[in-house]
Amino acid sequence: MAIDTAFTELSSFLGDRISRSKPVLDQHGGSETHFASAPPDIVVWPENTNEVSRILKICSHAGLPVIPFGAGTSLEGHTSAAKGGVCLDMARMNQILSQDPGDMIAQVEAGLTREELNHELRTLGVFFPVDPGANATLGGMAATRASGTTTVRYGSMRQNVLGLTVVLADGRIIRTGSRAAKSSSGYDLTALFLGSEGTLGIITELTLRLHGQPEEIRAGICAFPDMGSAVGAVQQVIQMGLAVARIEFVDETTARAFNQYAGTEMEECPHLLVEFHGSPTSVTEASDIFGEIVQDFGATGYEHATKAEDRNALWKIRHHAFYAVQSLRPGAHALVTDICVPISQLAKAVEDTRADIEASSIPGPILGHVGDGNFHAILLIATDNPDEMAEAKILAERMSRRALALGGTITGEHGVGMGKLHLMEEEHGFGWALMGDIKTALDPRNILNPGKLVPQAG
Amino acid sequence: MAIDTAFTELSSFLGDRISRSKPVLDQHGGSETHFASAPPDIVVWPENTNEVSRILKICSHAGLPVIPFGAGTSLEGHTSAAKGGVCLDMARMNQILSQDPGDMIAQVEAGLTREELNHELRTLGVFFPVDPGANATLGGMAATRASGTTTVRYGSMRQNVLGLTVVLADGRIIRTGSRAAKSSSGYDLTALFLGSEGTLGIITELTLRLHGQPEEIRAGICAFPDMGSAVGAVQQVIQMGLAVARIEFVDETTARAFNQYAGTEMEECPHLLVEFHGSPTSVTEASDIFGEIVQDFGATGYEHATKAEDRNALWKIRHHAFYAVQSLRPGAHALVTDICVPISQLAKAVEDTRADIEASSIPGPILGHVGDGNFHAILLIATDNPDEMAEAKILAERMSRRALALGGTITGEHGVGMGKLHLMEEEHGFGWALMGDIKTALDPRNILNPGKLVPQAG
Repeated sequence: MAIDTAFTELSSFLGDRISRSKPVLDQHGGSETHFASAPPDIVVWPENTNEVSRILKICSHAGLPVIPFGAGTSLEGHTSAAKGGVCLDMARMNQILSQDPGDMIAQVEAGLTREELNHELRTLGVFFPVDPGANATLGGMAATRASGTTTVRYGSMRQNVLGLTVVLADGRIIRTGSRAAKSSSGYDLTALFLGSEGTLGIITELTLRLHGQPEEIRAGICAFPDMGSAVGAVQQVIQMGLAVARIEFVDETTARAFNQYAGTEMEECPHLLVEFHGSPTSVTEASDIFGEIVQDFGATGYEHATKAEDRNALWKIRHHAFYAVQSLRPGAHALVTDICVPISQLAKAVEDTRADIEASSIPGPILGHVGDGNFHAILLIATDNPDEMAEAKILAERMSRRALALGGTITGEHGVGMGKLHLMEEEHGFGWALMGDIKTALDPRNILNPGKLVPQAG
Repeated sequence: MAIDTAFTELSSFLGDRISRSKPVLDQHGGSETHFASAPPDIVVWPENTNEVSRILKICSHAGLPVIPFGAGTSLEGHTSAAKGGVCLDMARMNQILSQDPGDMIAQVEAGLTREELNHELRTLGVFFPVDPGANATLGGMAATRASGTTTVRYGSMRQNVLGLTVVLADGRIIRTGSRAAKSSSGYDLTALFLGSEGTLGIITELTLRLHGQPEEIRAGICAFPDMGSAVGAVQQVIQMGLAVARIEFVDETTARAFNQYAGTEMEECPHLLVEFHGSPTSVTEASDIFGEIVQDFGATGYEHATKAEDRNALWKIRHHAFYAVQSLRPGAHALVTDICVPISQLAKAVEDTRADIEASSIPGPILGHVGDGNFHAILLIATDNPDEMAEAKILAERMSRRALALGGTITGEHGVGMGKLHLMEEEHGFGWALMGDIKTALDPRNILNPGKLVPQAG
């Protein structure tokens, strides 16, 4: 049997860095969300790019699916081994290969997490800005073209990855991009692999763009009488081009969840959390303008802090939002929606979403990276209740279709995986078929993370 | 004969927007640089995306090459009809389809030039920043992934194109991206077509990201005792993260060319031209810091201006650099090199290039967008002197190989075309073969701008 033969071949050079034990398989086939568990047949822990190449040659020869696995924090079933196969757990490829603050570049292995990287960079006066909330691996963040709280200022993975090392389906190794700030040298292969969700190749190393630690950072929070005011303030801030480094919205239910989960004492109403980076002068200037704008929109008590511990306390709340919100309904599964619309359509998108959720039987706090026009409703579904799941899926689909009608996209940052396959043709038309053509050209046997992103045969 | 049949079919719906007259063909097959003229068989002037689709269906059926043509300012032979065929002159697709300052978006046709766009946007308080110098079409800029003087602050086409309308080889029309600020919805088709040089599809419309007119703009110029000091100052400015909106280097020969061509009275020594955008406070702050840095590097007479006419006079000089430099050797052909290196390697790359040129018999002024690590030597070759051409090509190759050795790229902004084909495998390894696989998947009959960018059969 192909699996047994592959296991023997892989064991020959992986030693004890391979497993078929059921708990290990289950752990790698599950997810933090509503997708059913689909474990792989084998889990391996490669230690370098050459090993990944060797593994892919074996899997390619045997026609076995290969599923890359980072921190397991993805939300659309990306790591599900829908067709079995070999899971590549990247946990042992977590080295920083080089740090070069002079060029504002770090070269890292794909299994390193963003928090590990920033911890190491702390003393060098630089940092890597992309912050999706979860402590994801940088390879996983590249694979989903992740973004997050700081994207409004620093961009997403698209703007902050200069190059990649990728192992192709047949085991060939390529290096995309360079250490230069830009290039016009042929097709943008870096961009092609960013967001490809493991379906075109396995990302093993990344060349990342770093940013200087701002001289001053000021974080703030303010409370709004209603959601419309908060979102209106965001639109105004973005449209006037105010240089915010972060601008996050949480609704009253999310505020309540924070209070329950983390013991905070937030007023249970909509809030904006904001951050400014720059020189003391520019930060003060921007923060003052922000204060005036939110006051015009009825906000009260705009508090801000520059001390690191106060700022960290504020953002820790936001980073635990997913778990805090889940605690509102213990044991529930989450269906996390993720749309992104032009900023002029944000208020309509958020308000129509809220109306949909209020008319449903499902709790769904709303929060998001509103400076980009990106927000989430976290739909909490009682485990094993198919009616609720069906209702949640209808809610989620309505959100996605609304995003398209408003000129936006069905996913701002979480990706397609299995959860949004059925909406891809609506968003992309023939473009989705084109994605399928590219997939076939690069992975003719369809071994790379099958069942995700592209049109499925049959 | 295929051409005659195609001409008849195309004439049936293009009326007088089609030509086989020799002067027209010659005009479309030439270039401002050293490439030999290679005229197409037919030139057509489509007026909308549907017409482009119809043209491509006819050419695809007949197996005829299709070469898109914008302003004809590309520098690597991109518009050469190396295998004959039908040239699509995009001049009549020059409309602004929508302007939406609220979302900071404009939708335009591919034949619109960047200056035409910015002229229209002027009264709306927004602008499109990418500035390659030449008044190129936006479609052409997308096709070469252009950048330029403002990329150090606002990014290249990669960061400023949100979506594209593209006609595929078989005439199908796709729309990539959306009006949202970001997306994780599948492969980044927008990025794939940016820099594809007409080899994967014909770009007919673009959704562009606009930026707010800065409250204040300050431009400045300063003179350095030698090239090393000027480049050293740039490295320091970039490494400390000073927010320059433009930072351009010109060497003493370029300064002399400006004086001859434009009647300026620049000191004939290396200069930096710089610009700052922001609030009056932040601009003053940054400009003062810049003044201190360049003084440390021996610069004299840092002059700056905030009035529009003074700033425009300064940048007009820079924008005419190509023609000014050409005037140093009337009638000469230009071979324009274009490498980009990590900022830490900029001084070495520039100085070694200078040494190479000084040891040669060819004049080669050096200038560039040094904030990105990108610079050019404009090698001036006596027309019809094969020895000089051979020598210039060796110089250019040495520059490209040096860029690769220093972690950079063989082209920062001009693209591959025909001029850099022979260096692609050195830069990309198997990645270049992968580009060929993608090309074959999207254009199996190789009708789209054949002879450029990807590996050539036979």
